[in-house]
Amino acid sequence: MIDASFMRRIAEAAAVETLPRFRTQGQVTNKLSSGFDPVTEADRQAEKAIRSVIKAAFPTHGILGEEFGAENAESSHVWVIDPIDGTRSFISGVPLWGTLVGLTVDGDAVAGMMAQPFVGELFFATEAGAFYEGPRGKSALATRPTHRLADATLCTTTPALFKDGMRQAFDRLEANVRLSRYGTDCYAYCMVAAGHVDLVVEIGLQNYDVVALIPIIEKAGGKITDWDGGPAENGGGIIAAATPQLHAAALELLHDG
Amino acid sequence: MIDASFMRRIAEAAAVETLPRFRTQGQVTNKLSSGFDPVTEADRQAEKAIRSVIKAAFPTHGILGEEFGAENAESSHVWVIDPIDGTRSFISGVPLWGTLVGLTVDGDAVAGMMAQPFVGELFFATEAGAFYEGPRGKSALATRPTHRLADATLCTTTPALFKDGMRQAFDRLEANVRLSRYGTDCYAYCMVAAGHVDLVVEIGLQNYDVVALIPIIEKAGGKITDWDGGPAENGGGIIAAATPQLHAAALELLHDG
Repeated sequence: MIDASFMRRIAEAAAVETLPRFRTQGQVTNKLSSGFDPVTEADRQAEKAIRSVIKAAFPTHGILGEEFGAENAESSHVWVIDPIDGTRSFISGVPLWGTLVGLTVDGDAVAGMMAQPFVGELFFATEAGAFYEGPRGKSALATRPTHRLADATLCTTTPALFKDGMRQAFDRLEANVRLSRYGTDCYAYCMVAAGHVDLVVEIGLQNYDVVALIPIIEKAGGKITDWDGGPAENGGGIIAAATPQLHAAALELLHDG
Repeated sequence: MIDASFMRRIAEAAAVETLPRFRTQGQVTNKLSSGFDPVTEADRQAEKAIRSVIKAAFPTHGILGEEFGAENAESSHVWVIDPIDGTRSFISGVPLWGTLVGLTVDGDAVAGMMAQPFVGELFFATEAGAFYEGPRGKSALATRPTHRLADATLCTTTPALFKDGMRQAFDRLEANVRLSRYGTDCYAYCMVAAGHVDLVVEIGLQNYDVVALIPIIEKAGGKITDWDGGPAENGGGIIAAATPQLHAAALELLHDG
C-alpha cells in the first residue's frame, strides 16, 4: 500500500546512503566529460536502496531511475527515481537537495515524495492527499491563493539555463513577479505545495526530475504542466503554480514574446 | 565570557522569536515603500531578545542592530546584529536564513555567530577558534585548500545586484570558476568556513550583514575583505575566499576589466 509509512521507508532507505556522504570531501566524479555534472556514490547507492524497497513491496511494478535506467518499464505502474535531485546543492553543503521518488500509472503521476534528510523533512502525496513531515511536526500541504503575478514569488534553478528566446521569456516573467529566488532545485516545488512560494519555472528537466513532484503540487491545490500547457510527466520546460489562475498568467506571459 | 555557551544562549534567545514565525503567513510588512524589502515581526522581536542577552552579560558594551540602531556605540566593544539575514529566504520558507551576531573591538571583528535554528545549526568563532554545531554533531570549521578559480565553487545572492561595470566584473569571475550558486545569503559564508564552497562575492552589504561572518571565515583559514582588499567590517562589496591565494585570484580578476 502506498501510504505515509511506505514513503517514510523509501526516504529512510535512501538517507542511510546519502546522509553519511553529505558534507564529506572527495565524493564527486564527473558524469560527463563535458561540463560539470556531478554524480556521487551517494546517488548510486541511494538508488539501489530505493529500488530494493520498491521491488520488495511491488515486484510487478516497473522502475526508472537516473542512475541505473529502466527495469520492467512496460508495466502499467512505473516508479521514477532521482536519488539526489540538486547535486550542486549536495556538493556545496546546502541542504536543499532531495530524494525524489514518484509513481506513474499508465503514464500519469499519481503519488510521489521528496525527502530532505539532513533537515529531516518529507513532502509526499498519496491517494489520501499531500502531506508534510518535518522537525516541527506534520501537516497537510496546501498552496496559497496567489492569483496575480504581481503577488507571486518565483523560483528557478538559475536564469543561465534559459537560452535565446526562452531567456527573454523568463526575463519577462521575472520582471512581472514580486520576488524571485534562484538555486532551489526540487525544494522550490515543495515550497509551492506548502504555500511559501508561488511559482517555479524551469527548463530542460528529465522525467525523473519532476514526476515525484507532480502529485505533490496537484494534491496541494497547484497546477503543473510543461511550457505548452501539456502533461509535465515527460519533463522538458516546466511551470508549477500555486493556482490555476497564476499558472495561466505565467504561461501567457512566457509565450507573449 | 564569549564562548560556545554564550553563542548558544544568543542563538536560543533569537530562535524563540524567529522559529514560531517561520513558515507562517501574513508576517511580512514592507520596510521601504519603494521595492521589496521585507521585514518581519520575527526580525524585531529577535533583535530585542539578542540585545537583552548581550546587555545582561556585557552592560558596558555597545550594540548596533539592523532594526533598532546604535546604543553606546562609543564603546571599544560593539556587538553588531542582523536578527534575520536572508529575509527573502525566510519569507520563502527556505531554511538558509540566519541570525548574525558579531563583536568588534576597536573596529575589528573578533567573534561572531550565524545560527540557522530550523535546521538546528550554529556556526561560530571565538578566541578558541571557529566551530560548528549541527544535527549530526560538532566539529571545528576549516576551509578547503582551493587555490585556483578553476577549482572553485562561487556563491552570491543574485547576479542582478551587480550593476554596470561591477556586473561585468562578476560575470568575468563567474566564467572562470568551476560552479556558481545563487540565493545562499549568509549561509554561503558558513559553507566557505566549513569547506564545502570556496568563494562568496557580494555587493552593497551593510556592516550588520557581514561583521559576524568575518571571524568565522578568518578563524577557519579563509580570507575576507572588501573589493579593494581592505577590511570587510564596514560592508560594501565583499569577497570571502577559502584561501589567501584564491582571494588574490578573485580580486585580480574582478579588477582586470
